[in-house]
This record gives sequence, C-alpha cells and structure tokens, in this order.
Amino acid sequence: MAGTDSSRDPVLGGPVVILVKPQLAENIGAVARAMLNFGLTELRIVAPRDGWPNDNAYAMASRADPVLDAARLFDTTAAAIADLTRVHATTARRRDMVKPVLTPRAAAADMAATLAAGGRAGVLFGGERAGLDNDDVALAATIVEAPTNPAFSSLNLAQAVLLVAYEWFQAGDDRPPVMLDAGRTADAVAAGDLLRFFARLEGELDAGGFLKPPEKRPTMVRNIRNMFQRAGLTDQEVRTLHGIVSALIRPRGD
Amino acid sequence: MAGTDSSRDPVLGGPVVILVKPQLAENIGAVARAMLNFGLTELRIVAPRDGWPNDNAYAMASRADPVLDAARLFDTTAAAIADLTRVHATTARRRDMVKPVLTPRAAAADMAATLAAGGRAGVLFGGERAGLDNDDVALAATIVEAPTNPAFSSLNLAQAVLLVAYEWFQAGDDRPPVMLDAGRTADAVAAGDLLRFFARLEGELDAGGFLKPPEKRPTMVRNIRNMFQRAGLTDQEVRTLHGIVSALIRPRGD
Repeated sequence: MAGTDSSRDPVLGGPVVILVKPQLAENIGAVARAMLNFGLTELRIVAPRDGWPNDNAYAMASRADPVLDAARLFDTTAAAIADLTRVHATTARRRDMVKPVLTPRAAAADMAATLAAGGRAGVLFGGERAGLDNDDVALAATIVEAPTNPAFSSLNLAQAVLLVAYEWFQAGDDRPPVMLDAGRTADAVAAGDLLRFFARLEGELDAGGFLKPPEKRPTMVRNIRNMFQRAGLTDQEVRTLHGIVSALIRPRGD
Repeated sequence: MAGTDSSRDPVLGGPVVILVKPQLAENIGAVARAMLNFGLTELRIVAPRDGWPNDNAYAMASRADPVLDAARLFDTTAAAIADLTRVHATTARRRDMVKPVLTPRAAAADMAATLAAGGRAGVLFGGERAGLDNDDVALAATIVEAPTNPAFSSLNLAQAVLLVAYEWFQAGDDRPPVMLDAGRTADAVAAGDLLRFFARLEGELDAGGFLKPPEKRPTMVRNIRNMFQRAGLTDQEVRTLHGIVSALIRPRGD
C-alpha cells in the first residue's frame, strides 16, 4: 500500500513518539516512516546507541526525512517527557507493576482526551532487544500493549510504533468503514433505465423459455431483480448489460 | 513488543494471506512473522520473482518459519483463490473501478461474517513495487485500503499484512481495552483498611493545621479521599502509605 500526495499537512496534535535507547539507526528511520503514514511528526530520541544524527536512519526513512530532521535528542527519558502531561509506556512482556494496561485502541482514545483537555501525550518505546526498563515504565501513567497471538508475539520497533500510530489516526479519521468507489465515469443508473433493462431482460428470458413454470415466474423475476440491485449498477454498466443481452440473443454464426 | 509463549495454538479460521508476485524473499519472511503475531497461519504465494522455497525468507521469519513451511505455491492468482468464497484486494492507490472500499477494520468484520457463514476469506497483497494489477483486483469482491495520512502513505508489504492481520485479531479478541495489571503480590485494599488509613491521615493533617478553615474541611477531605480512591490502591500500597505518614510525622533529627 504505497502512494504519496504532498498537498496536505499531516494531522496535528498527535502524540510525541519517544524512542528510549534505540540501537540501530536504521530502525529510527523505519520508525519515522511508520509515524508519518499516520500523521505523527514529533520524534524524540533518548541516548541512541549509535548517536544522532545518523545517516543510516535517513537511508530507511523513505521520504519521511522531515521527521528525522525535526527529531530532538535527549540524554534521559525524564528530560524527554518533561513537558508532557500524559505518558504511555509500550511493552510486550508483563511487568510486576500495578499499572493500567491499555490496548493501542484504548490508548488512542486516551490521547484524544488528553488533546481535548489541552494536554500533550507521549508514548515511550524501548530498545530493540529488551524494551523499556522498569524505571522508564514507572515514568509513565499507563502501559500500552497490543493484543497479540498468545503463542507468538514478535513485533519489531517500527511495527510497534506503526500500530500505535495507526490507532491514533483511525480514531480521528472520518472515513466511513465501507464506501463505494465509483471510479471516474460512473453515475448510478436512474431507476427508469434500470427498470427498462429489467423489462428487456425478462422479455428475452420469456422468449427463451427460462421463466417457467408460470407460478414460479414472479419469484424468479424478483430474485433476478434483487441480484442486480445489490450490485449498485451504474449507467455505464446497464448499457453494458444491454450489450450483453444483445450479444447473447444474437443468432450464433453472426 | 516481543515475547513468545508457545503453549497455545494460534487463532483458527483467519483469512488466507495471498502474496501476488512478491519480489524479495526476505519480505515473504517478514510477512510470515507479521501474520503469526496475529494468529494468521495460511500463506499462499503466486509466482514469486525469486522462486520458492527460498532460504532468504527464513532468515527474516524469526520463529514464524512454520508459516513458511506450510506456504503453498501457485502459478496464478485465480488458482490461489479457487477455493475461497470471499476475496479482498489490498491497494494503496485508487483504481478506476466500481468496487466497495473497506477499511481494514471493516474488512475484519466482513471476514468474521464469512467465517460465521461457513465460507473462507482471503486477502490479496501485491508486489512491493506496484501492488496488485487491475486484473487481480477484479478477482476480488472488495478493495481494502488502510486510511493513512493524505500527505504521506508508504506502508511496506509486511506492514500492510500486519494491519490487516491486527484488525482480524482485534475483532476476535476478548481482552478489555483497559485493565489494571495487578502485578504479582497486589490485592486491592479492603475498604475498612482504606478508611482506617484515611482516618489516620486526616487526624495527622488536623494535628498539622492543614484542614482549615473548618467550613472547608469536608470538601478538602472528600477531595483527598477521592484522589486516593482513583489510584485503586492495593493492600501493600496502603501499608506503604502508612509508612510514609509515619516517616513524615516523625520529628526531624531521628
């Protein structure tokens, strides 16, 4: 799923993404790319193993380099979150701590509430090998954990960021869950034209001896009409259907 | 977010993942790993550029190799979907086609309905460079498109699979969106013990001249009690709070 339209700004107000002691710079680039897919632009990096800035990150960022350009470097997690009012800590393994555990979806709603209240949310992601240490988790108000297959859980750093960012974007997205893509030239057929098609089709089916016996004809006709109705036919498609009917009724050998 | 417990089977009945002409074998491995995080185990591969099986896939699979072991190879998309009753095609760019477009979340609900009706669902993912061609899209009933930042959309193949698989798993997951992780030793405090703590604290605050003037005391007490209530205190924590109070009231210099 790849395509880019640079004519609009990304979503504002999204949570800050904080990478705590990330190891590979390439993964920082992958994180920037994951973020920008879902409109997150503010990245903070705490004590990266390979230093910052780092060209290897840009190699993986795939046009998300503005996120890297704007990324801020910190020595400690506490410094990185000082201005935030609601901090979430992502984990894969349970900690021996008494803390609310949110799914990414619930965290997105929580972040939206923070934004609505004039606050600023951030999400901590730990290093690739072992994740956040317990002291970092204690700096956060909640734990965020994606429900995964109990028998296999192996999300990499960019994927963890992706899921949190995805849920943030879905929470604010107005797009209907299902919509009909009408393509460039398609107008829905007017009812009159549709009925004219039905009438023609049924006439031809009668001529071919299909709608029999007579006591079953009304049901057969209804079922056929309902089938075509469900397709949500366009003007062009009805014209096509007329052409199909014509081609089929034409004597063979023409 | 990484951790693995191999004592339970992954979710059954999930959609088949079909990769159509994938290019890099490493990406096939990454796809297998993305799938298994969310309980998807059935992978089909159509005309992979680098052939199949391919060791490079295993290098990226990170213990998801059983998915690769069981993957089936096909020459054509049509052959790969022949036994399926509901096929979805993932895309990033709009096609000039009249087709329902579903979000991954809506697609997950659609797949659950297919399963409930005794059918078999599958999802087509195109090659890394250009995605599915229009002929492949026409083999599907719907298009699945993840809502992304209008200004930047750059999901890689494994990430596209991840989002679809994630939504499938969330649709079937019973886990509450927010829960309190109580840790190993934490029982919620009994109300009597909590009230005893409140009484002690308020007594000490009175002795320190804090709950004044008298007409404001009831409100102050209520606010303090409500604050502690929201923490959902455990037994151990109340004991700790008692210790804190004791330490604070102790004359300095002890």
